Amino acid sequence: MDLYDAINRRRDTRAEFTGAPVAEDVLTRVLSAAHSAPSVGMSQPWDFVLVRDPGKLEAFHEHVATQRAVFADALDGERAETFSRIKIEGIRESGLGIVVGHDPTRGGQHVLGRHAIADAGLYSTCLAIQNLWLAATAEGLGVGWVSFYREEFLSGLVGFPDRIRPVAWLCVGNVADLPDTPDLERFGWRHRSPLHSVLHKETWRER
Amino acid sequence: MDLYDAINRRRDTRAEFTGAPVAEDVLTRVLSAAHSAPSVGMSQPWDFVLVRDPGKLEAFHEHVATQRAVFADALDGERAETFSRIKIEGIRESGLGIVVGHDPTRGGQHVLGRHAIADAGLYSTCLAIQNLWLAATAEGLGVGWVSFYREEFLSGLVGFPDRIRPVAWLCVGNVADLPDTPDLERFGWRHRSPLHSVLHKETWRER
Repeated sequence: MDLYDAINRRRDTRAEFTGAPVAEDVLTRVLSAAHSAPSVGMSQPWDFVLVRDPGKLEAFHEHVATQRAVFADALDGERAETFSRIKIEGIRESGLGIVVGHDPTRGGQHVLGRHAIADAGLYSTCLAIQNLWLAATAEGLGVGWVSFYREEFLSGLVGFPDRIRPVAWLCVGNVADLPDTPDLERFGWRHRSPLHSVLHKETWRER
Repeated sequence: MDLYDAINRRRDTRAEFTGAPVAEDVLTRVLSAAHSAPSVGMSQPWDFVLVRDPGKLEAFHEHVATQRAVFADALDGERAETFSRIKIEGIRESGLGIVVGHDPTRGGQHVLGRHAIADAGLYSTCLAIQNLWLAATAEGLGVGWVSFYREEFLSGLVGFPDRIRPVAWLCVGNVADLPDTPDLERFGWRHRSPLHSVLHKETWRER
Protein backbone atom coordinates (compact mmCIF):
# COMPACT_ATOMS: atom_id res chain seq x y z
CA MET A 1 0.00 0.00 0.00
CA ASP A 2 1.17 3.52 -0.76
CA LEU A 3 2.45 5.31 2.34
CA TYR A 4 -0.03 8.19 2.12
CA ASP A 5 -2.90 5.75 1.61
CA ALA A 6 -1.82 3.91 4.76
CA ILE A 7 -1.64 7.19 6.69
CA ASN A 8 -5.11 8.22 5.53
CA ARG A 9 -6.79 4.80 5.78
CA ARG A 10 -5.48 4.13 9.31
CA ARG A 11 -8.23 4.19 11.93
CA ASP A 12 -8.45 3.52 15.65
CA THR A 13 -10.55 0.37 15.51
CA ARG A 14 -13.11 -0.63 18.14
CA ALA A 15 -16.19 -2.26 16.65
CA GLU A 16 -15.03 -3.75 13.36
CA PHE A 17 -13.01 -6.78 14.48
CA THR A 18 -14.17 -10.12 13.04
CA GLY A 19 -12.19 -12.35 15.41
CA ALA A 20 -10.55 -14.25 12.52
CA PRO A 21 -6.95 -15.07 13.55
CA VAL A 22 -4.13 -12.99 12.12
CA ALA A 23 -1.86 -15.09 9.86
CA GLU A 24 1.60 -15.58 11.32
CA ASP A 25 3.46 -14.21 8.29
CA VAL A 26 1.31 -11.07 8.35
CA LEU A 27 1.92 -10.60 12.06
CA THR A 28 5.66 -11.01 11.55
CA ARG A 29 5.68 -8.32 8.87
CA VAL A 30 3.76 -5.95 11.15
CA LEU A 31 6.04 -6.58 14.13
CA SER A 32 9.13 -6.29 11.94
CA ALA A 33 7.89 -2.88 10.79
CA ALA A 34 7.60 -1.84 14.44
CA HIS A 35 11.09 -3.15 15.18
CA SER A 36 12.44 -1.11 12.22
CA ALA A 37 11.48 2.19 13.86
CA PRO A 38 14.10 4.80 14.66
CA SER A 39 15.35 4.80 18.24
CA VAL A 40 17.60 7.06 20.23
CA GLY A 41 21.16 5.78 20.02
CA MET A 42 19.76 2.68 18.25
CA SER A 43 18.62 1.46 21.66
CA GLN A 44 15.45 -0.26 20.33
CA PRO A 45 13.98 0.03 23.83
CA TRP A 46 10.61 -1.64 23.13
CA ASP A 47 9.14 -5.04 24.00
CA PHE A 48 6.06 -6.63 22.48
CA VAL A 49 3.98 -9.16 24.39
CA LEU A 50 1.40 -11.02 22.30
CA VAL A 51 -1.65 -11.81 24.40
CA ARG A 52 -4.23 -14.29 23.07
CA ASP A 53 -5.16 -16.16 26.24
CA PRO A 54 -8.95 -15.70 26.63
CA GLY A 55 -8.62 -15.39 30.39
CA LYS A 56 -6.14 -12.54 30.06
CA LEU A 57 -8.26 -10.80 27.41
CA GLU A 58 -11.31 -11.06 29.67
CA ALA A 59 -9.39 -9.79 32.69
CA PHE A 60 -8.11 -6.76 30.79
CA HIS A 61 -11.57 -6.09 29.34
CA GLU A 62 -13.03 -6.03 32.85
CA HIS A 63 -10.32 -3.72 34.13
CA VAL A 64 -10.90 -1.33 31.24
CA ALA A 65 -14.64 -1.34 31.98
CA THR A 66 -13.92 -0.05 35.50
CA GLN A 67 -11.73 2.73 34.07
CA ARG A 68 -14.42 3.62 31.56
CA ALA A 69 -16.80 4.11 34.49
CA VAL A 70 -14.27 6.38 36.24
CA PHE A 71 -14.07 8.63 33.17
CA ALA A 72 -17.84 8.58 32.62
CA ASP A 73 -18.44 9.68 36.20
CA ALA A 74 -16.44 12.87 35.58
CA LEU A 75 -18.64 13.95 32.64
CA ASP A 76 -21.78 16.09 32.65
CA GLY A 77 -24.83 16.34 30.41
CA GLU A 78 -24.09 16.28 26.70
CA ARG A 79 -20.56 14.93 27.19
CA ALA A 80 -21.81 12.03 29.29
CA GLU A 81 -24.57 11.28 26.78
CA THR A 82 -22.18 11.39 23.80
CA PHE A 83 -19.59 9.25 25.58
CA SER A 84 -22.19 6.62 26.45
CA ARG A 85 -22.54 5.77 22.75
CA ILE A 86 -18.80 5.38 22.08
CA LYS A 87 -17.19 1.93 22.16
CA ILE A 88 -13.71 2.27 23.60
CA GLU A 89 -12.17 -1.15 23.03
CA GLY A 90 -12.31 -4.42 21.10
CA ILE A 91 -10.10 -6.44 23.46
CA ARG A 92 -12.02 -9.72 23.29
CA GLU A 93 -13.37 -9.30 19.75
CA SER A 94 -9.93 -8.75 18.19
CA GLY A 95 -8.56 -11.90 19.84
CA LEU A 96 -5.06 -10.44 20.03
CA GLY A 97 -3.59 -7.80 22.27
CA ILE A 98 -0.09 -6.51 21.64
CA VAL A 99 1.22 -4.99 24.83
CA VAL A 100 4.05 -2.57 24.14
CA GLY A 101 6.55 -2.05 26.91
CA HIS A 102 9.36 0.45 27.25
CA ASP A 103 12.68 -0.59 28.82
CA PRO A 104 14.68 2.50 29.84
CA THR A 105 17.76 0.36 30.57
CA ARG A 106 18.08 -1.01 27.03
CA GLY A 107 21.37 0.00 25.48
CA GLY A 108 23.20 0.44 28.76
CA GLN A 109 24.29 3.60 30.50
CA HIS A 110 25.59 5.64 27.57
CA VAL A 111 22.79 5.78 25.02
CA LEU A 112 23.81 8.28 22.37
CA GLY A 113 21.35 11.17 22.43
CA ARG A 114 19.57 10.25 25.65
CA HIS A 115 21.70 11.99 28.29
CA ALA A 116 19.92 15.34 27.91
CA ILE A 117 16.36 14.09 27.33
CA ALA A 118 15.39 11.31 29.73
CA ASP A 119 12.21 10.59 27.78
CA ALA A 120 13.95 10.17 24.41
CA GLY A 121 13.73 6.39 24.75
CA LEU A 122 10.03 6.57 25.52
CA TYR A 123 9.58 8.63 22.35
CA SER A 124 11.34 5.88 20.37
CA THR A 125 8.91 3.27 21.65
CA CYS A 126 6.01 5.40 20.41
CA LEU A 127 7.57 5.61 16.94
CA ALA A 128 7.58 1.81 16.83
CA ILE A 129 3.86 1.82 17.59
CA GLN A 130 3.12 4.10 14.66
CA ASN A 131 5.13 1.86 12.31
CA LEU A 132 3.14 -1.11 13.61
CA TRP A 133 -0.16 0.72 13.11
CA LEU A 134 0.61 1.73 9.53
CA ALA A 135 1.87 -1.74 8.59
CA ALA A 136 -1.26 -3.30 10.07
CA THR A 137 -3.35 -0.89 7.98
CA ALA A 138 -1.46 -1.88 4.84
CA GLU A 139 -2.10 -5.55 5.71
CA GLY A 140 -5.84 -4.92 6.06
CA LEU A 141 -5.83 -5.27 9.84
CA GLY A 142 -7.41 -3.00 12.39
CA VAL A 143 -5.58 -1.59 15.42
CA GLY A 144 -7.26 -0.09 18.46
CA TRP A 145 -5.11 1.59 21.09
CA VAL A 146 -6.70 1.19 24.51
CA SER A 147 -5.60 3.68 27.15
CA PHE A 148 -8.32 3.21 29.78
CA TYR A 149 -6.13 1.27 32.22
CA ARG A 150 -3.85 1.63 35.17
CA GLU A 151 -0.24 0.92 34.28
CA GLU A 152 0.34 -1.29 37.33
CA PHE A 153 -2.59 -3.51 36.36
CA LEU A 154 -1.27 -4.09 32.86
CA SER A 155 2.28 -4.67 34.13
CA GLY A 156 0.97 -7.34 36.46
CA LEU A 157 -1.09 -8.99 33.73
CA VAL A 158 1.88 -9.55 31.43
CA GLY A 159 4.60 -9.87 34.07
CA PHE A 160 6.64 -6.77 33.34
CA PRO A 161 9.47 -6.24 35.83
CA ASP A 162 9.51 -2.89 37.61
CA ARG A 163 11.82 -1.25 35.11
CA ILE A 164 9.54 -1.83 32.11
CA ARG A 165 6.72 0.63 31.62
CA PRO A 166 3.62 -0.44 29.72
CA VAL A 167 3.01 2.11 26.97
CA ALA A 168 0.08 0.61 25.08
CA TRP A 169 -2.42 -2.18 24.72
CA LEU A 170 -3.11 -2.52 21.02
CA CYS A 171 -6.09 -4.60 19.90
CA VAL A 172 -4.95 -6.06 16.58
CA GLY A 173 -7.07 -8.16 14.27
CA ASN A 174 -8.86 -8.76 11.04
CA VAL A 175 -11.72 -6.34 10.43
CA ALA A 176 -14.89 -6.23 8.39
CA ASP A 177 -13.77 -2.80 7.18
CA LEU A 178 -12.08 0.38 8.34
CA PRO A 179 -14.44 3.37 8.71
CA ASP A 180 -13.78 6.40 6.51
CA THR A 181 -14.39 8.74 9.45
CA PRO A 182 -12.87 8.37 12.94
CA ASP A 183 -15.35 7.13 15.55
CA LEU A 184 -14.97 10.20 17.75
CA GLU A 185 -15.96 12.41 14.81
CA ARG A 186 -18.86 10.15 13.76
CA PHE A 187 -20.25 10.19 17.28
CA GLY A 188 -19.80 13.94 17.71
CA TRP A 189 -17.18 13.76 20.45
CA ARG A 190 -14.58 15.94 18.73
CA HIS A 191 -13.54 17.06 15.25
CA ARG A 192 -10.21 17.24 13.49
CA SER A 193 -8.49 20.62 13.34
CA PRO A 194 -6.98 22.20 10.22
CA LEU A 195 -3.21 22.04 9.76
CA HIS A 196 -2.74 25.81 10.02
CA SER A 197 -3.97 25.74 13.61
CA VAL A 198 -0.83 23.87 14.70
CA LEU A 199 1.68 25.48 12.35
CA HIS A 200 4.04 28.31 13.28
CA LYS A 201 6.93 30.08 11.58
CA GLU A 202 10.12 30.87 13.50
CA THR A 203 8.26 31.59 16.73
CA TRP A 204 5.26 29.96 18.41
CA ARG A 205 2.15 32.20 18.55
CA GLU A 206 -1.11 31.74 20.45
CA ARG A 207 -3.95 30.68 18.11
CA MET B 1 6.24 5.07 -2.19
CA ASP B 2 5.15 1.74 -0.77
CA LEU B 3 4.75 1.84 3.01
CA TYR B 4 7.26 -0.93 3.70
CA ASP B 5 9.77 0.74 1.39
CA ALA B 6 9.35 3.99 3.33
CA ILE B 7 9.84 2.14 6.63
CA ASN B 8 13.00 0.45 5.38
CA ARG B 9 14.46 3.42 3.48
CA ARG B 10 13.97 5.85 6.39
CA ARG B 11 17.24 6.95 7.96
CA ASP B 12 18.27 9.38 10.66
CA THR B 13 20.08 11.89 8.49
CA ARG B 14 23.11 13.92 9.55
CA ALA B 15 25.66 14.38 6.79
CA GLU B 16 23.66 14.07 3.56
CA PHE B 17 21.77 17.39 3.44
CA THR B 18 22.34 19.46 0.30
CA GLY B 19 20.82 22.70 1.60
CA ALA B 20 18.44 22.98 -1.36
CA PRO B 21 15.14 24.45 -0.09
CA VAL B 22 12.19 22.12 0.40
CA ALA B 23 9.35 22.93 -2.00
CA GLU B 24 6.28 24.31 -0.22
CA ASP B 25 3.87 21.71 -1.63
CA VAL B 26 6.18 18.91 -0.51
CA LEU B 27 6.48 20.41 2.96
CA THR B 28 2.70 20.75 3.20
CA ARG B 29 2.24 17.06 2.34
CA VAL B 30 4.78 16.06 4.97
CA LEU B 31 3.22 18.26 7.66
CA SER B 32 -0.28 17.08 6.72
CA ALA B 33 0.88 13.49 7.18
CA ALA B 34 2.08 14.41 10.67
CA HIS B 35 -1.21 16.13 11.43
CA SER B 36 -3.10 12.98 10.32
CA ALA B 37 -1.56 10.90 13.10
CA PRO B 38 -3.74 9.22 15.70
CA SER B 39 -4.14 11.11 18.97
CA VAL B 40 -5.71 10.28 22.28
CA GLY B 41 -9.31 11.52 22.30
CA MET B 42 -8.56 13.20 18.94
CA SER B 43 -6.74 15.91 20.89
CA GLN B 44 -4.07 16.51 18.20
CA PRO B 45 -1.81 17.93 20.92
CA TRP B 46 1.17 18.80 18.71
CA ASP B 47 2.58 22.08 17.38
CA PHE B 48 5.12 22.50 14.59
CA VAL B 49 7.43 25.50 14.43
CA LEU B 50 9.32 25.89 11.16
CA VAL B 51 12.73 27.43 11.80
CA ARG B 52 14.74 28.73 8.84
CA ASP B 53 16.27 31.87 10.32
CA PRO B 54 20.08 31.42 10.01
CA GLY B 55 20.65 33.08 13.38
CA LYS B 56 18.36 30.61 15.10
CA LEU B 57 19.92 27.64 13.28
CA GLU B 58 23.37 28.82 14.32
CA ALA B 59 22.30 29.36 17.94
CA PHE B 60 20.80 25.88 18.16
CA HIS B 61 23.85 24.35 16.49
CA GLU B 62 26.09 25.98 19.10
CA HIS B 63 23.91 24.82 21.97
CA VAL B 64 23.96 21.25 20.63
CA ALA B 65 27.76 21.38 20.39
CA THR B 66 27.96 22.09 24.12
CA GLN B 67 25.68 19.14 24.84
CA ARG B 68 27.77 16.92 22.59
CA ALA B 69 30.78 17.81 24.71
CA VAL B 70 28.88 16.91 27.90
CA PHE B 71 28.12 13.44 26.51
CA ALA B 72 31.66 12.95 25.16
CA ASP B 73 33.14 13.77 28.58
CA ALA B 74 31.25 10.83 30.11
CA LEU B 75 32.79 8.29 27.70
CA ASP B 76 35.97 6.27 28.06
CA GLY B 77 38.44 4.69 25.62
CA GLU B 78 36.84 2.92 22.66
CA ARG B 79 33.44 4.58 23.21
CA ALA B 80 34.97 8.05 23.22
CA GLU B 81 37.01 7.26 20.11
CA THR B 82 34.01 5.81 18.24
CA PHE B 83 31.77 8.72 19.24
CA SER B 84 34.34 11.25 18.03
CA ARG B 85 33.75 10.09 14.43
CA ILE B 86 29.94 10.36 14.57
CA LYS B 87 28.17 13.44 13.26
CA ILE B 88 25.14 14.13 15.44
CA GLU B 89 23.30 16.89 13.60
CA GLY B 90 22.78 18.73 10.32
CA ILE B 91 21.06 21.79 11.76
CA ARG B 92 22.67 24.41 9.52
CA GLU B 93 23.18 22.18 6.48
CA SER B 94 19.52 21.13 6.26
CA GLY B 95 18.36 24.76 6.36
CA LEU B 96 15.10 23.83 8.06
CA GLY B 97 14.36 22.78 11.60
CA ILE B 98 10.90 21.58 12.53
CA VAL B 99 10.46 21.95 16.26
CA VAL B 100 7.73 19.69 17.55
CA GLY B 101 5.96 20.80 20.70
CA HIS B 102 3.48 18.99 22.90
CA ASP B 103 0.55 20.89 24.44
CA PRO B 104 -0.95 18.86 27.31
CA THR B 105 -3.90 21.27 27.58
CA ARG B 106 -5.13 20.69 24.01
CA GLY B 107 -8.62 19.23 23.98
CA GLY B 108 -9.61 20.62 27.36
CA GLN B 109 -10.06 18.84 30.66
CA HIS B 110 -11.84 15.68 29.54
CA VAL B 111 -9.73 14.12 26.83
CA LEU B 112 -11.18 10.70 26.10
CA GLY B 113 -8.60 8.07 27.06
CA ARG B 114 -6.20 10.37 28.88
CA HIS B 115 -7.53 10.34 32.44
CA ALA B 116 -5.68 7.16 33.38
CA ILE B 117 -2.43 7.73 31.45
CA ALA B 118 -1.10 11.25 31.82
CA ASP B 119 1.49 10.70 29.10
CA ALA B 120 -1.01 9.47 26.49
CA GLY B 121 -0.95 12.89 24.82
CA LEU B 122 2.83 12.89 24.69
CA TYR B 123 2.67 9.50 22.99
CA SER B 124 0.33 10.98 20.36
CA THR B 125 2.81 13.72 19.55
CA CYS B 126 5.48 11.07 18.91
CA LEU B 127 3.17 9.24 16.49
CA ALA B 128 2.89 12.46 14.50
CA ILE B 129 6.68 12.61 14.27
CA GLN B 130 6.86 9.12 12.80
CA ASN B 131 4.23 10.00 10.19
CA LEU B 132 6.28 13.09 9.32
CA TRP B 133 9.46 11.06 9.05
CA LEU B 134 7.95 8.42 6.77
CA ALA B 135 6.29 11.01 4.53
CA ALA B 136 9.57 12.91 4.26
CA THR B 137 11.28 9.66 3.24
CA ALA B 138 8.65 9.04 0.55
CA GLU B 139 9.24 12.61 -0.70
CA GLY B 140 12.99 12.00 -0.96
CA LEU B 141 13.83 14.22 2.01
CA GLY B 142 16.11 13.43 4.90
CA VAL B 143 15.13 13.85 8.55
CA GLY B 144 17.54 13.98 11.46
CA TRP B 145 16.17 13.98 15.00
CA VAL B 146 18.48 15.97 17.27
CA SER B 147 18.20 15.22 20.98
CA PHE B 148 21.41 16.76 22.28
CA TYR B 149 19.73 19.79 23.84
CA ARG B 150 18.21 21.11 27.03
CA GLU B 151 14.47 21.51 26.75
CA GLU B 152 14.45 24.99 28.32
CA PHE B 153 16.92 26.24 25.72
CA LEU B 154 14.80 25.05 22.82
CA SER B 155 11.62 26.41 24.42
CA GLY B 156 13.26 29.80 24.71
CA LEU B 157 14.52 29.72 21.13
CA VAL B 158 11.06 29.24 19.62
CA GLY B 159 9.03 31.00 22.29
CA PHE B 160 7.05 28.11 23.70
CA PRO B 161 4.92 29.09 26.70
CA ASP B 162 5.52 27.09 29.87
CA ARG B 163 2.81 24.56 29.17
CA ILE B 164 4.28 23.42 25.85
CA ARG B 165 7.06 20.87 26.02
CA PRO B 166 9.57 20.64 23.17
CA VAL B 167 9.69 17.02 22.02
CA ALA B 168 11.99 17.17 19.02
CA TRP B 169 14.15 19.24 16.74
CA LEU B 170 13.95 17.63 13.31
CA CYS B 171 16.45 18.67 10.65
CA VAL B 172 14.48 18.34 7.41
CA GLY B 173 15.86 18.86 3.95
CA ASN B 174 16.83 17.63 0.55
CA VAL B 175 19.60 15.04 0.60
CA ALA B 176 22.21 13.71 -1.80
CA ASP B 177 21.07 10.21 -0.81
CA LEU B 178 19.91 8.17 2.16
CA PRO B 179 22.49 5.64 3.41
CA ASP B 180 21.52 1.96 3.28
CA THR B 181 22.94 1.37 6.75
CA PRO B 182 22.27 3.54 9.82
CA ASP B 183 25.20 5.77 10.79
CA LEU B 184 25.53 4.25 14.26
CA GLU B 185 25.95 0.81 12.70
CA ARG B 186 28.37 2.05 10.01
CA PHE B 187 30.54 3.70 12.64
CA GLY B 188 30.44 0.70 14.99
CA TRP B 189 28.54 2.41 17.79
CA ARG B 190 25.73 -0.16 18.07
CA HIS B 191 24.00 -2.84 15.96
CA ARG B 192 20.36 -3.65 15.38
CA SER B 193 18.87 -6.52 17.35
CA PRO B 194 16.78 -9.36 15.90
CA LEU B 195 12.98 -9.21 16.30
CA HIS B 196 12.83 -12.30 18.54
CA SER B 197 14.87 -10.51 21.20
CA VAL B 198 11.94 -8.14 21.89
CA LEU B 199 9.05 -10.56 21.32
CA HIS B 200 7.16 -12.38 24.07
CA LYS B 201 4.08 -14.58 24.21
CA GLU B 202 1.47 -14.10 26.95
CA THR B 203 4.10 -13.22 29.56
CA TRP B 204 7.28 -11.15 29.45
CA ARG B 205 10.47 -13.22 29.99
CA GLU B 206 14.04 -12.06 30.56
CA ARG B 207 16.19 -12.53 27.44
